[in-house]
Amino acid sequence: MPDAHSTSAAPRWTYLGPAGTFTEAAMRSLPGAEHAEATPMESVPAALDAVRRGDADGAVVALENSVEGAVSITLDELATGSSLVITAEVLLPVSFALLVRPGVTLDDVKTLSSHSHAQPQVRNWLAANLPDAQWYSSASNADAARQVQEGRYDAALAGEFAAKPYGLVPLITDIHDVEGAVTRFVLVERPDRPTGPTGADRTTVVAYIVDDHPGALLEILQEFAVRGVNLTRIESRPTGDGLGHYFFSMDAEGHVADARVGEALMGLRRVCAAVRFLGSYPRADGIRPTLRRGTSDSEFENASAWLARARAGEI
Amino acid sequence: MPDAHSTSAAPRWTYLGPAGTFTEAAMRSLPGAEHAEATPMESVPAALDAVRRGDADGAVVALENSVEGAVSITLDELATGSSLVITAEVLLPVSFALLVRPGVTLDDVKTLSSHSHAQPQVRNWLAANLPDAQWYSSASNADAARQVQEGRYDAALAGEFAAKPYGLVPLITDIHDVEGAVTRFVLVERPDRPTGPTGADRTTVVAYIVDDHPGALLEILQEFAVRGVNLTRIESRPTGDGLGHYFFSMDAEGHVADARVGEALMGLRRVCAAVRFLGSYPRADGIRPTLRRGTSDSEFENASAWLARARAGEI
Amino acid sequence: MPDAHSTSAAPRWTYLGPAGTFTEAAMRSLPGAEHAEATPMESVPAALDAVRRGDADGAVVALENSVEGAVSITLDELATGSSLVITAEVLLPVSFALLVRPGVTLDDVKTLSSHSHAQPQVRNWLAANLPDAQWYSSASNADAARQVQEGRYDAALAGEFAAKPYGLVPLITDIHDVEGAVTRFVLVERPDRPTGPTGADRTTVVAYIVDDHPGALLEILQEFAVRGVNLTRIESRPTGDGLGHYFFSMDAEGHVADARVGEALMGLRRVCAAVRFLGSYPRADGIRPTLRRGTSDSEFENASAWLARARAGEI
Amino acid sequence: MPDAHSTSAAPRWTYLGPAGTFTEAAMRSLPGAEHAEATPMESVPAALDAVRRGDADGAVVALENSVEGAVSITLDELATGSSLVITAEVLLPVSFALLVRPGVTLDDVKTLSSHSHAQPQVRNWLAANLPDAQWYSSASNADAARQVQEGRYDAALAGEFAAKPYGLVPLITDIHDVEGAVTRFVLVERPDRPTGPTGADRTTVVAYIVDDHPGALLEILQEFAVRGVNLTRIESRPTGDGLGHYFFSMDAEGHVADARVGEALMGLRRVCAAVRFLGSYPRADGIRPTLRRGTSDSEFENASAWLARARAGEI
Repeated sequence: MPDAHSTSAAPRWTYLGPAGTFTEAAMRSLPGAEHAEATPMESVPAALDAVRRGDADGAVVALENSVEGAVSITLDELATGSSLVITAEVLLPVSFALLVRPGVTLDDVKTLSSHSHAQPQVRNWLAANLPDAQWYSSASNADAARQVQEGRYDAALAGEFAAKPYGLVPLITDIHDVEGAVTRFVLVERPDRPTGPTGADRTTVVAYIVDDHPGALLEILQEFAVRGVNLTRIESRPTGDGLGHYFFSMDAEGHVADARVGEALMGLRRVCAAVRFLGSYPRADGIRPTLRRGTSDSEFENASAWLARARAGEI
Repeated sequence: MPDAHSTSAAPRWTYLGPAGTFTEAAMRSLPGAEHAEATPMESVPAALDAVRRGDADGAVVALENSVEGAVSITLDELATGSSLVITAEVLLPVSFALLVRPGVTLDDVKTLSSHSHAQPQVRNWLAANLPDAQWYSSASNADAARQVQEGRYDAALAGEFAAKPYGLVPLITDIHDVEGAVTRFVLVERPDRPTGPTGADRTTVVAYIVDDHPGALLEILQEFAVRGVNLTRIESRPTGDGLGHYFFSMDAEGHVADARVGEALMGLRRVCAAVRFLGSYPRADGIRPTLRRGTSDSEFENASAWLARARAGEI
Repeated sequence: MPDAHSTSAAPRWTYLGPAGTFTEAAMRSLPGAEHAEATPMESVPAALDAVRRGDADGAVVALENSVEGAVSITLDELATGSSLVITAEVLLPVSFALLVRPGVTLDDVKTLSSHSHAQPQVRNWLAANLPDAQWYSSASNADAARQVQEGRYDAALAGEFAAKPYGLVPLITDIHDVEGAVTRFVLVERPDRPTGPTGADRTTVVAYIVDDHPGALLEILQEFAVRGVNLTRIESRPTGDGLGHYFFSMDAEGHVADARVGEALMGLRRVCAAVRFLGSYPRADGIRPTLRRGTSDSEFENASAWLARARAGEI
Repeated sequence: MPDAHSTSAAPRWTYLGPAGTFTEAAMRSLPGAEHAEATPMESVPAALDAVRRGDADGAVVALENSVEGAVSITLDELATGSSLVITAEVLLPVSFALLVRPGVTLDDVKTLSSHSHAQPQVRNWLAANLPDAQWYSSASNADAARQVQEGRYDAALAGEFAAKPYGLVPLITDIHDVEGAVTRFVLVERPDRPTGPTGADRTTVVAYIVDDHPGALLEILQEFAVRGVNLTRIESRPTGDGLGHYFFSMDAEGHVADARVGEALMGLRRVCAAVRFLGSYPRADGIRPTLRRGTSDSEFENASAWLARARAGEI
């Protein structure tokens, strides 16, 4: 399999646009971003589909936020369609700026806009500082900035970096309700041999349970638990087949090349109707798992060698 | 404790407005709705806060949708603030109508709007029938209808019942991408002694795990599993304390008055940092749980009597 | 229920005789033994049946040995027939003496005898010190001493205390293969209100699983594990209904009056075909359990009060 | 490794003697027994040690009885010393005959003898038919017959087949308390490549847990349960290191060559301090396991191939 993006000096990446979104800021922080040919897309599906079609080498999309939770559209789009895998992640602190046209003051702000994900993260700030202003939803924070530029709204809540592209100024910066809020973005590519384990890795999978029997989730968790693999995220998402029918999107500690992770994934695959592997990649926070007794690669190898001897009658 | 709503001939209910939302349609289908004094509110928090303050007796809000998943704002608002409990649920089929001003034809529709939850449910229909029309997010589908009335957009995607209040006509009806899609709404009230078990009940709880140790979710599920209580929904939601820190919102089969449910909830309470009881109420689908051996009320009573004899030395 | 043994100044106890057995030595170490009217019995069933009939107030029998394992006859006899409960336990170090008639030397010993449970505990010593002597099984070690007195064997392996009653002398003492070997004896009485928890207690139960389905033992263990109750002993014993059909004899940490133990026993009772409570009593080793979070009596009480409030609508 | 016993026309087998034991009868029913050179041994350890030294090719010993339970000496001897493996099993119905010298009648029987394992299986019959006769323990039932021949006892309880070798006659036959009682014997050999799976196999292992932590047995059972491997027998045996310190002897459904069994054994090996493989061999009862979804060899192969593709980036 040719490794398209490594042979290319300039990877072609898409991201949720327009220019000036947090997603763009996340993309700019990825290694190699300075050489990337970056294309803003109007939606998460559009960003991913460009990769699926081969029009781009990677897409940067938001996966979850520490205040708002999972980004459902990303989870759902990765769970269906042709396979894509996550190859990198970025954690970006959430901090908004109130962007206005030059000369506009806080008293002038009667209308403001942002993406619907942003609003709950600044709800308290708005109630305290702009109690009478009317908030409107935009397709993205940057799009809100664009509409402020066009004069449709008085202010936009967006990353400070979105001011310049739209000729706005940051009236107030570092706006956030929750200290330490962070959004997790991922770089998504077409499947290719994953980079090797770093010792601080994450593996993302999607599991469809069999006929929603009671205890199915417990069964899934036990496949991981019995091999000492911790889950750092689990989300249920509807399959679309009616209430009570879910698939699960999960992040596990470790790399698909780790013996314990590999065996857990095989177990998952056997008890589930379908499992989709969404990649193994280094954790942005660099946290290494604490391995329970009996779950290291060398212990797996010893057990495997012991079994081989038992099967050969050499014990 | 005075039972405010039963002594009142006309319960005062709030709902996510404006008039003409699916939430209003759900509210209208509740028993007693014909006598209710219904007030539309601008947001889910506003609808719930009116109940908390005593300005309303109940609030009708959406909890989950079989295509879009959980309604995060509802889960998060019920998980914090002063306690509220769910006392009834309604399942409403999802079916949209394309509402336009009289005289407008499909070819005239260049812009259209709906709530952001509606868009993914009609995405395919839009791609097939209005590929070039621009979609805009509104605060609710009914609000989109209102804006069509005002001339801001050419069409709104909303329930057919939203046409009349806004002087619009349904150009096309029964629009949906997924056959059988349904939204679940709940009536939320201030805590009061729950109505007794019907045999087909649901119990909703929120659990905050202790310091996010690995295996905490497995521990929670085992508290239910060992008492034979099935979960029909489980959602992880961020606590706001950083990625990897979650609380869980769950629906269990059965009623808090059932012995097995009561013991499971006590177990949950003991292993969790905090548990919030969000009510026991009849299931809208009338499905009765299949009880595993050893989990009926009479088996709990027999075991309890046996233990009492053992403790008294009378066996 | 009249409390026969506490109103009696002199409890009547049976034990596995004849005089001079380890069982007698264990009995002598029990509180109150100095006043007891002790009757040796020819077998464990006979000792227990005397209690069942009311001819005795208690029976002292061996339950397990740290080298030889469970004493099957005791487990089986306690599991059937009318109910008896354990009210005390004694741990007795295993140490044998080689008892001979006065004047007999080690070179004279061509035949020797002991109970069949004793032989494996001195096997290595015999191989090293009396490699050519022939060993014979006796009904008890003391009975072996009696037969030595009668001249049938040259020596008996028994407790040193068995020398005097049979006119023998201990030629060699402190004989044992395994350093620290210990036998656990129990005092068994007719059911009566157990003494209260001491904080270092043990509870013994027998569980008959339902139709031997796979996973039944796992189910039993989970009833204990989910309430944080540790098992210190578990034995499978055949029910007599064919290979693969077992009942389980178990010792759990804690007292039937402890909330976590009570709830675990009720759970056991519900998932099993039958459960027999065999008593709660102070541990001879005084070890107190390490309680897992959420399993103390006060946490159970808090959870119970919380559930009561939830059921009353007062949360 | 040379396959000693298959190249030998006449396998050399030991068994618990003397001639006329149930063990000999079990040995005679094994395939190839007609050519075997059979040597009675005085004890189970002696029979096994002959195989360990190479003086014999196999040993036939009793493992468990449906009334009396496990044969501890066999479990303990297989768990220590140089490795041996079970290669075949035999189920033998338990039925005793009352053997006497010619001319002796039931009224003449004042003393009788058998192995201590036999006594509990005929206890009720003795109470009903020979209430006043004194029972004595012998090293084996056949040894009891020998002692009857020598005139030491009036009668022996043994297999009918033990009459002829000792010049006795069966006064009464088909004596047993429990209908359908059966003893399971095994043929034990030095390790060699096991015969392939038959589809109705059993695998025997011994597991030593790590430092006896609470929950260790639950952990062991979960290693089997998560791979859908049922246990048909589990025995705890003391390690000799003091009360509360056990190892577990287990029979699992299936063959070491089965994928699910192999993975479960590797898991067991990783979580335990030590595991000893004691062989995979055809079940005497021919019962085939009911496989749970996801546990067949082909499902393991599919999952393994899927994992390989995920690791190679080819999904």
